[in-house]
Order: sequence, then structure tokens, then C-alpha cells
Amino acid sequence: MSLHLRNEIDTLKQELLKMAGLAESAVARAMQAVETRDDALAKRVKGDDDTLDTLEIAIDEMGIQLLAKAPLASNLRLINAAMKISRDLERVGDEATSIARRALHLNVEPPLSLPEELGELLQCALEMLAQALDAFVNEDPVSARAIPPRDQHADALNKEIHRALISRMVTAPDTITRVVHVLVISKCLERIADHATNIAEDVVYLCEARDIRHMGKA
Amino acid sequence: MSLHLRNEIDTLKQELLKMAGLAESAVARAMQAVETRDDALAKRVKGDDDTLDTLEIAIDEMGIQLLAKAPLASNLRLINAAMKISRDLERVGDEATSIARRALHLNVEPPLSLPEELGELLQCALEMLAQALDAFVNEDPVSARAIPPRDQHADALNKEIHRALISRMVTAPDTITRVVHVLVISKCLERIADHATNIAEDVVYLCEARDIRHMGKA
Repeated sequence: MSLHLRNEIDTLKQELLKMAGLAESAVARAMQAVETRDDALAKRVKGDDDTLDTLEIAIDEMGIQLLAKAPLASNLRLINAAMKISRDLERVGDEATSIARRALHLNVEPPLSLPEELGELLQCALEMLAQALDAFVNEDPVSARAIPPRDQHADALNKEIHRALISRMVTAPDTITRVVHVLVISKCLERIADHATNIAEDVVYLCEARDIRHMGKA
Repeated sequence: MSLHLRNEIDTLKQELLKMAGLAESAVARAMQAVETRDDALAKRVKGDDDTLDTLEIAIDEMGIQLLAKAPLASNLRLINAAMKISRDLERVGDEATSIARRALHLNVEPPLSLPEELGELLQCALEMLAQALDAFVNEDPVSARAIPPRDQHADALNKEIHRALISRMVTAPDTITRVVHVLVISKCLERIADHATNIAEDVVYLCEARDIRHMGKA
């Protein structure tokens, strides 16, 4: 690979990491807006989401330009993986926006205590996301393979929160409207863990299908 | 473009259409399982979903092989769009599986009348999906541009269903567990409409960024 091409691929990776940082901070901010009932913070998440949308389009443009210049199958896989991952990150931003929207709804109602496991689910989802991105940057399939099993823990936490919230609605029907917002927030976090899992699967595919380039036409 | 390459790109499109047909029937079956309380049907949706996962991987393989052979930017865009759309269709399958899972939960509980708008939302989502795929096959940006506005209707229907279901939980707390399943089903349908919107946006991007190939290096 020419030095010039390598530099361009590095730039693509850098842009993706910028997206990843933004997506992570959007999720963290959205959840902070829920916990601290902070309207201004919730509204700022929307701005992060717009930036993520713009970055996704920029990465697509860059990817298409690079695809034309980098005919080796291993490069094509890498560029393609980057474009797929950017879409996952864009959707993480959408989930953060959903959470922020629920925060704004919750903030006009009386405070509601949040299930303890919600914090644990947030941490799990953010760690999975960070680990998946590290695995991409380092092209490390071993680290990537460790992520899907963690998704089961995220699913279990979401189910536990779900059960606890349904009991609360049954015993305190006056909380139903607010509790449904929290149900949705928990589901959003669970979906962020799903996106991290998708990214990890892309990394495994990227790394382990690599020897296919020898069968390619390039 | 050589005849051989055109044939291969046509095959890629055909595989995508096969996926689209399967995704649509998975959604229709899952909702039928909810409406008719049919466990066997709900379980068959899982099989459709496995086939969709396999097809997504096959399209990725085919796409990567083709990317190496088709260095014109317009081809790269088309192949890339096909690979992105296949991921959206795979996720439509995931939503169908979620709906089917909720059907199985609902079927062990006493019957619950479903909100009328749920059928309308299903129809809206399926029509959007079919229209988005047609727009891709025909590379028709005008038809594709008509889809995102319909997504607002899907969102509005989901919100209406959401409101009605919350009222029902408040007035009949014994229905809470079941009603939450229906809330999730409605959200799944709304997400299917989102996937149709993503596909439509990919089609617009595919068609309207086409003249960029003149600026490319191919």
C-alpha cells in the first residue's frame, strides 16, 4: 500500500474515532440529563446528534473515494467496515437523542426514583462501545470476540429493569406515564449495547476473512 | 461496464430483493401471530430471521468481491448502497423476531383487544418498505424522496397508540403486563418504518451523488 493511501485510510479511522467519542459523550450526557433533570443538557444532545449525522455522510464520501483507489480486498474490507461502523455510531446518536427526549418529558413531572440497574446498564453499554472501537482500531479479533457475550448481560439487565418497572406500575398506577419513559430509556441503552455488538462482529469479519484477499481479483 | 460485471451486479440486486421479500413476510407473519394468537407462526419467524442473517453475510461477501472489480464510482456507490440496505433488511428481521417473541408472551395470557391504529401502522411500515425497495431497484430518487415524509405519519401513529395504551394501563392496571408487550410491538413497527426511511435516503444519495464519479480517480 502506498504511503499516501495509508495516510488516507488513517484519516478515515481518525474521523471514525471522532464520531465514536461524540457518540459516547452524547449517551453519557443524555443519561446525565435524566439523572440530574437537566433540560439544557438534554437539548445539547440534539446538537451532538446533528454532528454525528454530518460525520456519517462525510465518512461515506471519504469511503467511496477510497474504495476507488484501494482495490486490494483487505483495504476494501477495512473501508467497508468503517462505513458500516459509522452508521452504527450514527444510530447510537439517535438512541441518545431518544433518551434526551424522554429526559425532557420526565423533567416536567414529579421526580421518580430510577432503578439502580439503569446505571449499571449505562456503564455496560459504554464499555462495550469503547471496547468495540478499540478492537477496530487495533484490528484485534480476540478483543472483539469478547464483546457479544457481554451483550447477554446487557439484555439481562434490561429485562430485570423491565420486570421491576412493571411491578412498580402495578403497585403505583399514578407513576405509569413516567415509568413508561424509563422503560424506553432502558431499551435505548440495551440497543446501544446491540450496536456495540454489531461493531464487534464487523471487526471479527474484517480480521478473519482477511485471507480471502488471496482469492480476490486485485 | 462489461456484460459480465452487469450480470454480477444484477445478481446482487436479485439477492437483495430476495432478502426484502423475506423481511416483509417475516413482519407480516409476526403481526399475524399477534393477531391470531398463533404460536407456531411466531416460531417460524425465527427461521426467517436466521435466513436473513445468512443472506446479509452472503451479500457482504458478494459486495466485497464486486468492489474489487468495479472501480467506477457509480458502481461503488451502488454496491455500497446494496450492502447498507442488506443490513437494514437484516434489522427489519430482528424487529419481526421481537414482535414474534411478544406474541408468544401474549399468547399465554388472556386475550387483549389491540388498538385499531396498530393495523394501520403495520400497513404503513410495509408499504414504505416496499416503496423504498422499488426505488432502489429502479434507482428512482423521486419515489425515494416521497418516503421520509411518510415516516412522520408512522411516528404519529405510534405516539397515538402509545397514548391510548397508557390510558388503558391507568384505567385497567390488571392489563399492564400485556399492554407493555403491545407498546413494544408498536415501537418495533415504527422502527421498521425508520429502516424503510434509511433505505430511501440511501437511494437518494446513490442517485444524486452520481455525477461525483466525474471527479473520481477511476
